[in-house]
Amino acid sequence: MNLRVPIVQAPMGGGASTPEMAAAVSNAGGLGSIAGGYLSAAQIHAEAAAVRKLTDRPFAINLFVDVITAPEPAVLERASERLRPVREALGLEHPATPPLPSENRDEQMRAMLECRPAVFSFTFGIPPRGVLEACKEAGIFTMGTATTLDEAVLLERAGVDAVCVQGAEAGAHRGTFLAPVEESLIGTLALVPQVVDAVRIPVVAAGGIGDGRGVAAVLALGAIAAQLGSAFLLADESRISEPWRRALQSAAVQKTAVTTAFSGRAARGIRNRFIDELGGAPEIAPYPFQNTLTAQIRAAAAKSGRDEFLSLWAGQAAGLARALPTATIVGQIMAEARSAAERSKTYTG
Amino acid sequence: MNLRVPIVQAPMGGGASTPEMAAAVSNAGGLGSIAGGYLSAAQIHAEAAAVRKLTDRPFAINLFVDVITAPEPAVLERASERLRPVREALGLEHPATPPLPSENRDEQMRAMLECRPAVFSFTFGIPPRGVLEACKEAGIFTMGTATTLDEAVLLERAGVDAVCVQGAEAGAHRGTFLAPVEESLIGTLALVPQVVDAVRIPVVAAGGIGDGRGVAAVLALGAIAAQLGSAFLLADESRISEPWRRALQSAAVQKTAVTTAFSGRAARGIRNRFIDELGGAPEIAPYPFQNTLTAQIRAAAAKSGRDEFLSLWAGQAAGLARALPTATIVGQIMAEARSAAERSKTYTG
Repeated sequence: MNLRVPIVQAPMGGGASTPEMAAAVSNAGGLGSIAGGYLSAAQIHAEAAAVRKLTDRPFAINLFVDVITAPEPAVLERASERLRPVREALGLEHPATPPLPSENRDEQMRAMLECRPAVFSFTFGIPPRGVLEACKEAGIFTMGTATTLDEAVLLERAGVDAVCVQGAEAGAHRGTFLAPVEESLIGTLALVPQVVDAVRIPVVAAGGIGDGRGVAAVLALGAIAAQLGSAFLLADESRISEPWRRALQSAAVQKTAVTTAFSGRAARGIRNRFIDELGGAPEIAPYPFQNTLTAQIRAAAAKSGRDEFLSLWAGQAAGLARALPTATIVGQIMAEARSAAERSKTYTG
Repeated sequence: MNLRVPIVQAPMGGGASTPEMAAAVSNAGGLGSIAGGYLSAAQIHAEAAAVRKLTDRPFAINLFVDVITAPEPAVLERASERLRPVREALGLEHPATPPLPSENRDEQMRAMLECRPAVFSFTFGIPPRGVLEACKEAGIFTMGTATTLDEAVLLERAGVDAVCVQGAEAGAHRGTFLAPVEESLIGTLALVPQVVDAVRIPVVAAGGIGDGRGVAAVLALGAIAAQLGSAFLLADESRISEPWRRALQSAAVQKTAVTTAFSGRAARGIRNRFIDELGGAPEIAPYPFQNTLTAQIRAAAAKSGRDEFLSLWAGQAAGLARALPTATIVGQIMAEARSAAERSKTYTG
């Protein structure tokens, strides 16, 4: 990946990562990322163009590579019905028919290829062979996400260029695609060295890396770079909602949980009423259908400051996030990483 | 703690840590530990004497400092009844009355004070003020276990000399005493730096540290030493049962779970039938009553090689454990730690 600075900015939805943030990280010598998973082909093109206006350095486009399979209409009806009390609490109309996701994975991948980013990073699975081949031809470096040893080995076998190992600490969606999600909750500290031993491709570590100490730590584990998400959530370039920002700056940030309640896929966020009441409910629709069902709720909750109904995505090191310009954050993190590495060297003597 | 080598050998039950292991770690310049939580006063004295025969270096005695409160007899009856099918599968008699734990926390603490170890480490809570004062008077360094930020702060306020931060990756019992256990499952990488920022006392990191790369990593996070347990499970000086050893050397080591099924307290081990069938059962008795109820089952399962009914304690980095003499393991880990710290320094520029 040839980074001057071993920092990858994690792609984040909900307005958390922006073209301005991605460009700032890339300009600082790291790798900025566009969160393309929820975008249309046109939006992917627009975001890539926005990043290119601000930097000529490499950046990544991240996509979800799951196969979207519609559930039975009755499943969606039940899932929507289960959300009725939340809608009522927010003064929202109950929709006559459940809204459906508009994401088209093929179109997203085509748009990514047309944009020719330096890096195509992805999560939730392995892309079709044709896409990986097209990347190779176009000189696009590919990086898949693994949450277990088996997933990492499978990504390597598929011909992916690097693997992003996502530990249990990570905020938002788990990249898990092989194991049941409970088996994927392995701490970064434990998982990274085991993956480094099992694969030959480079490993990027993600999950629980809150500052330069964490960066130095994962480099010691054998990673070539650290991917940080929560560390940038409060950056000037982040456009997260006010209630989300407030929650991140409160003591609640210490209490996160992994839930499928918001999107149908396991994801880590600050525990709130929505997670407590909906989490584990049998009516939750599969991803991304649940996500579409709760979209209106999350938007209304963000607008009215009702953080009890909002997805407050956060990793377990989100308490270390700082509200500064992205470039300053990267600079501080690297200064911390240098002194942390020096400390480790002194103590190992 | 004045260690020549920043390694603490975690106290481990079930024959995993032994006086020979503790002495070997202390002789190598680290800190060996006696797992005193299940021992009688006489056994604590005997183990301390056995360690002292093999080393004149400092070592720790570790105790459980929970308050043991007997449940209603009906609760114990139900818990015992729930184990009937397991007993039958193992050809064991169903006991007429449920056996009761014999541990006496006061006697254990008195024995520890009489032994005057260099370090008194403890878990499951905060010892009575009188014990901490007696330690201070006797020049015994105290180290408590925290699994959350709040627990670490509370230990510092109680006047403890150091805090062992136990991340979610750790094998066997969670030290959690304040939070619900779900909230205590925070990765070492995320938790250690946040605790380092919140307390002034030294921090020892535990959980998910499988080799020297992990040691270098937690030193970068700000810990003064790394506590390793699973890394010593296969050591020559370990006396774990054959089925436990075999499970640790199999692919099953990648799949651990946190369960209360064996002891009544949340603990991480390799997933097996016992965990799958009993885990979360409403009949599980509180700690240490469940532990006493399952003692006969675990002993019989170990003897007959039935690993499906055995507590196969393991942390998430247990896959990195090596079958070598303890002294060799410590030497290899420190050599790895030095090159990992060097690597981190190179990559952070």
